[in-house]
Amino acid sequence: MNNKDNLEESLRIRKIKEGTVIDHIRPGTALYVLKILKITGREGNIISVAMNVPSGKLKEGHKDVVKIENRELDPNEINVIAIIAPNATISIIRDMKVVNKMRVSLPDELHDVDIQCINPRCITNSNEPVKNHFKVIKKEPLEIQCLYCHKSMNYREILQNLKV
Amino acid sequence: MNNKDNLEESLRIRKIKEGTVIDHIRPGTALYVLKILKITGREGNIISVAMNVPSGKLKEGHKDVVKIENRELDPNEINVIAIIAPNATISIIRDMKVVNKMRVSLPDELHDVDIQCINPRCITNSNEPVKNHFKVIKKEPLEIQCLYCHKSMNYREILQNLKV
Repeated sequence: MNNKDNLEESLRIRKIKEGTVIDHIRPGTALYVLKILKITGREGNIISVAMNVPSGKLKEGHKDVVKIENRELDPNEINVIAIIAPNATISIIRDMKVVNKMRVSLPDELHDVDIQCINPRCITNSNEPVKNHFKVIKKEPLEIQCLYCHKSMNYREILQNLKV
Repeated sequence: MNNKDNLEESLRIRKIKEGTVIDHIRPGTALYVLKILKITGREGNIISVAMNVPSGKLKEGHKDVVKIENRELDPNEINVIAIIAPNATISIIRDMKVVNKMRVSLPDELHDVDIQCINPRCITNSNEPVKNHFKVIKKEPLEIQCLYCHKSMNYREILQNLKV
């Protein structure tokens, strides 16, 4: 096996021509990244996902990767990824070349994201036309607080309360 | 581009050494297949998913593919896939070779699958320890009926009522 084969072996999914690559996602959480980006597959874009693949970075061990063809994520979408995958890197690809590569960065506040407040009595869980709004009160380990009912949620609770 | 490159182009995700390949899934529905197989990614297996890729079969146009490494699905699991992907083919791979290739086949009845009855008052939606049980009343287009409350559900309703 030569070096190129080794690289292909670790890549598992092939390079894309145009679009966005989300790399270094926590192993086993790629489906949550799709969820928070509201990607179901029904949009028609080619989406490739690889979960629990060996990572080139030794300290990481394993990772997930998502490739979205023919769609460039915007900065708001990119930062929302940080909720699920705080160490993710985003590469924007044009004509097979990486034109922009960046780390995700967790915003201080989250507006209208697909997370349901854990408090069933919160106004954001009623039929009122109120969009959710959370404050990030701790980044590591992640903790967010609803600005309406002040109930806080940790990482595990956020994963469990992602809207479908 | 030679024939091998063309094949790789259409494959998008590389061949696996051991495990199960679910091919010819309806485009955009691979995540539902993972859901009905209760695969979240947290199990640790390497999972590769490609959605909306061009299919070699002309009449199909596009398709989804799921590859599960180091796990061979059993016949019960395989038939449950037919609910989401009635035309899927399953290949069991050992040492890079296809040792068994089969079409999925929808069972006449579905016991204890991860589908929630659409009727909120159904006993299977109460706190009673009753596992769901559906009868397949039509295969194309798919229609299933709850054996407890007799409410029927079509394909779209099934997708919406897959348990998370």
